[in-house]
Amino acid sequence: MQNISELLQKSLGKPKQRLVIAASEDLNVLEAVQFAVEKNLISPIFVGNIKQTIELAKSIKFNIEQFELIDTPDISTSAHISIGLIKNFKADILMKGLIPTANLLKVAVDKHEGIAAGKFLSHVALSQVKSYHKPILTTDCALNISPNFQKKVQIIENAVAVMHNLGYQNPKVAIICPVEKENAHIESTVHAVQLTQMNLDGKISGCQIFGPLALDNAISSESAKHKGIKNDVAGDADILLVPDLDSGNILYKAINFLASGTTAAIITGAQCPIVLTSRSDSSENKLYSIALAVCSVVGL
Amino acid sequence: MQNISELLQKSLGKPKQRLVIAASEDLNVLEAVQFAVEKNLISPIFVGNIKQTIELAKSIKFNIEQFELIDTPDISTSAHISIGLIKNFKADILMKGLIPTANLLKVAVDKHEGIAAGKFLSHVALSQVKSYHKPILTTDCALNISPNFQKKVQIIENAVAVMHNLGYQNPKVAIICPVEKENAHIESTVHAVQLTQMNLDGKISGCQIFGPLALDNAISSESAKHKGIKNDVAGDADILLVPDLDSGNILYKAINFLASGTTAAIITGAQCPIVLTSRSDSSENKLYSIALAVCSVVGL
Repeated sequence: MQNISELLQKSLGKPKQRLVIAASEDLNVLEAVQFAVEKNLISPIFVGNIKQTIELAKSIKFNIEQFELIDTPDISTSAHISIGLIKNFKADILMKGLIPTANLLKVAVDKHEGIAAGKFLSHVALSQVKSYHKPILTTDCALNISPNFQKKVQIIENAVAVMHNLGYQNPKVAIICPVEKENAHIESTVHAVQLTQMNLDGKISGCQIFGPLALDNAISSESAKHKGIKNDVAGDADILLVPDLDSGNILYKAINFLASGTTAAIITGAQCPIVLTSRSDSSENKLYSIALAVCSVVGL
Repeated sequence: MQNISELLQKSLGKPKQRLVIAASEDLNVLEAVQFAVEKNLISPIFVGNIKQTIELAKSIKFNIEQFELIDTPDISTSAHISIGLIKNFKADILMKGLIPTANLLKVAVDKHEGIAAGKFLSHVALSQVKSYHKPILTTDCALNISPNFQKKVQIIENAVAVMHNLGYQNPKVAIICPVEKENAHIESTVHAVQLTQMNLDGKISGCQIFGPLALDNAISSESAKHKGIKNDVAGDADILLVPDLDSGNILYKAINFLASGTTAAIITGAQCPIVLTSRSDSSENKLYSIALAVCSVVGL
């Protein structure tokens, strides 16, 4: 992809997906779903307080009575029912409505009724900023607080799978650190060297990994040149692995608020993509997130 | 300040400062010094391999033979001599030349011959980005790897002192975290609550502290409103305290490379400001860093 706008085209080329909203009584989410329905991207299933959902939908002239509507007495039940629909292949994408993320994910990762199937969930965000020549996927900027080495391997694998679904064959993964050399006092640099070696040894495949790289070396070939770094990933990264949540959240917010980026984000690793839009997301970002989810449905 | 361009005007209103360059045989640094000399901001003292320094200066048509030139046999000696000049009040600003930062700072913090005087050194960067209505100071994005609570207090105090020197009376300090609520699993949020309380109790003064705030809540009043945050610091921060080096370096690089910001940076806390410019800094950034150092000389 040269630009994130291609994401919408790609998603429109896929079969229409069934998107289930847990606790659908959320105006912000209804707006996002309305955009996606208008684009013919998805067919929605509303699970929650249906009376309230219909009223909110009416306020934005979104007629939802033609779609599947499942009334539930509380948000917990809406989470259980929505995730049950995914588990039984009656829906393809899960979207968070007016329910705290933690409550929804607790059900999603439950051993018995959940949809994680023993796999590790992580957050990916695909962004476009003016200062970079192509979209860039950042991970994990929102879910895992302080991933250890083994979890970082899984975060990379999850991100690479998303990129494969988008048509990338061998995405370039930059391991972001505050310095370009291994430093025993900075764990991210130690992990970077190990991850790079595992990739060289073929233990993480389907991508090209390099680190440690500071953010500028990953996205600016001029910066990489100044530092004397010669590697295909430097200045041309497709995926940025961040050290932890503290740093990832800053990167995500910097992309969207300081650099006025456009971003699509989902939680990946489960049986289906999970969409969490936030109140402060732009309409464009919300639509792109659903488009990324459509492209990420496994088995398309 | 409304814009970082005022920094240059402010520094021009100060007496001309004596800037000593340790290991002056560095083209990148000579260019920065040349700009500052042309602006009449500083009077330079070159310490290092003088033959090489003169040759490099000639290559950019910078005639340095009119200034004080101290020839040294190696970079270690140049560090000792430069820092000795600061200690004995024969220079006001220290600038790093072709010597690794660690080597220079090791001498600077030495108990006997150093210039830290038992104080704690930290990095501050004053930046301007198009998406924010005023300059913003970020700290510590380059020096301290994983500051504990007590060090964070000192990092704030150092940053507040820099802002006071720039004319700010009560700068607004946002404690940046990945979430807006205290979470025992995320140390930065625990620190944020404690720092906010210390400020309320008058134990950290001369500033207004608030946190935890995610980056967007600190710099966007719209984001803060969406999250229901009501505090003067939210959306209007002057200083951003980052959790650690992993996150700070990403913020610093995001400001400069993703958001095409203009940045002035110094190390503060010692007897004098220390300027470290990097090869990849723009000419503008290098000049602004020297201007910030001039404004930060204590006792002006």
